[in-house]
Amino acid sequence: MTSGFHFDLLRTDGSARRGRITTSRGTVETPAFMPVGTAASVKAMMPAQVRATGAEIILGNTYHLMLRPGADRIARLGGLHRFMGWEGPILTDSGGYQVMSLGPLRKISEDGVTFSSHIDGSMHALSPERAVDIQLVLGSDIQMVLDECTPYPATFDEAQSSMLLSMRWAKRARAAFIERRDAARHAQFGIQQGGVHLDLRRRSLAALQEIGFEGYAAGGLAVGEGQDEMFRVLDGISPDLPAAAPHYLMGVGKPADIIGAVLRGIDMFDCVLPTRSGRHGQAFTKDGPINLKNAVFAEDDAPLDSASACPASSQFSKAYLHHLVRAGEMLAAVLLTWHNIAFYQELMAGLRLAIERGEAASFGREFLLQYRRERA
Amino acid sequence: MTSGFHFDLLRTDGSARRGRITTSRGTVETPAFMPVGTAASVKAMMPAQVRATGAEIILGNTYHLMLRPGADRIARLGGLHRFMGWEGPILTDSGGYQVMSLGPLRKISEDGVTFSSHIDGSMHALSPERAVDIQLVLGSDIQMVLDECTPYPATFDEAQSSMLLSMRWAKRARAAFIERRDAARHAQFGIQQGGVHLDLRRRSLAALQEIGFEGYAAGGLAVGEGQDEMFRVLDGISPDLPAAAPHYLMGVGKPADIIGAVLRGIDMFDCVLPTRSGRHGQAFTKDGPINLKNAVFAEDDAPLDSASACPASSQFSKAYLHHLVRAGEMLAAVLLTWHNIAFYQELMAGLRLAIERGEAASFGREFLLQYRRERA
Repeated sequence: MTSGFHFDLLRTDGSARRGRITTSRGTVETPAFMPVGTAASVKAMMPAQVRATGAEIILGNTYHLMLRPGADRIARLGGLHRFMGWEGPILTDSGGYQVMSLGPLRKISEDGVTFSSHIDGSMHALSPERAVDIQLVLGSDIQMVLDECTPYPATFDEAQSSMLLSMRWAKRARAAFIERRDAARHAQFGIQQGGVHLDLRRRSLAALQEIGFEGYAAGGLAVGEGQDEMFRVLDGISPDLPAAAPHYLMGVGKPADIIGAVLRGIDMFDCVLPTRSGRHGQAFTKDGPINLKNAVFAEDDAPLDSASACPASSQFSKAYLHHLVRAGEMLAAVLLTWHNIAFYQELMAGLRLAIERGEAASFGREFLLQYRRERA
Repeated sequence: MTSGFHFDLLRTDGSARRGRITTSRGTVETPAFMPVGTAASVKAMMPAQVRATGAEIILGNTYHLMLRPGADRIARLGGLHRFMGWEGPILTDSGGYQVMSLGPLRKISEDGVTFSSHIDGSMHALSPERAVDIQLVLGSDIQMVLDECTPYPATFDEAQSSMLLSMRWAKRARAAFIERRDAARHAQFGIQQGGVHLDLRRRSLAALQEIGFEGYAAGGLAVGEGQDEMFRVLDGISPDLPAAAPHYLMGVGKPADIIGAVLRGIDMFDCVLPTRSGRHGQAFTKDGPINLKNAVFAEDDAPLDSASACPASSQFSKAYLHHLVRAGEMLAAVLLTWHNIAFYQELMAGLRLAIERGEAASFGREFLLQYRRERA
């Protein structure tokens, strides 16, 4: 639809898809994991370090950026890419998810949502149109529509009325986007809601397709329903997802979630897990997650992954990382975040190669067999 | 004296000296500034980033390392260099300075000092001999003798008795070092004390030379006496410092302190200032220090130093750094620490070149003219 953005489906393997997103700022091989750069920074990381892991696209949070330093300020400083020194594509969320998490600090109406800043208590408003504006001002390559992330659990009626509101907002967001986008450089994704109710999910997706977007996201999953339930929903919606557009599962997840979702046709992921857990001493390894604070690593001279091209993974011993975590050294967060992003990118590269070879299912099985061995 | 360690005096310019320290782990061009790697980490920095600034030697703290993770553990993990991934020379202090700072938590006797760990309250002891042992176990290239850092102010009698204790300890430390050092790969520096009393300083230096060390440090300065008084002491001791050995001014300092000390014959420096202030939003610039938290930088699109080869100095705007500091992002500490170390290394490179050209005094004058212009 937009000349600067398109998606090529290169290969399928069952429901799994090997694709390529093209943007005016570069390509993204899918399935792809997007490290989260909440406040114009993938926490503790230099952009060059993030790029070196193989990450081709990062996520920015409209909610955080609109509050600090402010979208207009970022625009005056040349846009989000230039501001933070990330030259590749950036996807921005609409701010909806964070605002909904504010609980009593926010108020939803048909028009949109008003909320009080968690930073200084100042009042702000987001509407479908304003979320489009802010993301255009930030200069994001892929923007998300404002939606209401339906909480879990929700009754059918609650989930339905929430989904219908999100669909009305999606229609307004698309109209605003079409009217305002400059030179067709940007893309906009719709977000499917409907809780765990397949009927609602299907109606939501149909509504989004009727409106027409460059990509289709599933929101309101990984919010407490559990992996089995999430996979059941993905199984239910997978056949209806439009083959010609990318499929994005928002806020997911653990390696096992990602593998299962890729096998169910998802192309894009984001999650704070690799970055946040890195700041808390946790490292992802092929043998499962470990916490470096554990005394068992005090004299473990082996690196996290001697075969990795990532310096954080291969050049420092677990004993050293253990020491840094125990001593509260900032370098612990730097190295573990870097390693975890590299681990996730390596997982995605493995999945992409497996799909090309028609071995996605067995790759996933073998990965998880080793990943879960310790606790089996 | 040790075959693995020697010092070459390449050029003098007034009292300023251009030299080169050779160790078994590489050379150090002097005058040199040593970034402080307290707990086996130059805080927030990867070793490769520290090296990329031009730093050739770093400092480790015996006090911190003996408490956590413990010198024996570091030895079992291959020594401090391998443990932290720094291949170049490392100088370790003796632990004396930190222990003396513990105040009521430590007790000094003729034999040495006993103290209670600031981490867990456990009791530890340091003697001149044990400080030698620990530093050998760590594998440091240059070790410092245990001394009592005379507090400021001190009466002549207090400073004298403290200095004499340090000299008795220095003698014991040298004997232990000669007896125990392996394959002559390491060097040991004596530390001059005597407060601000030139007579005591001269007697201390004579005592150290009588014992004989690979290098001579001045301790107990920059402890509150002020720059004028420190320079007066350096002027007084400078003529007596042995030309054939490196001169190290411990714990110094601000750029103006370093310039003044280099002009008075000092070859080596260490200070937490560039790293610590980087974690608090402060950046050193050619026009003086600035605090990025200041609102004046909110939309300042210029980097800290566009001409610098350091990515932290040249690739990010002050506006972005301002945002990171305000948002409490860890990347602020990473980038400002990196920039500050690069700034210090560039200052040292400038001083070295100026000495080679016989222009040390005018270099210092011009540097400080620009550095202090804003506040003149």
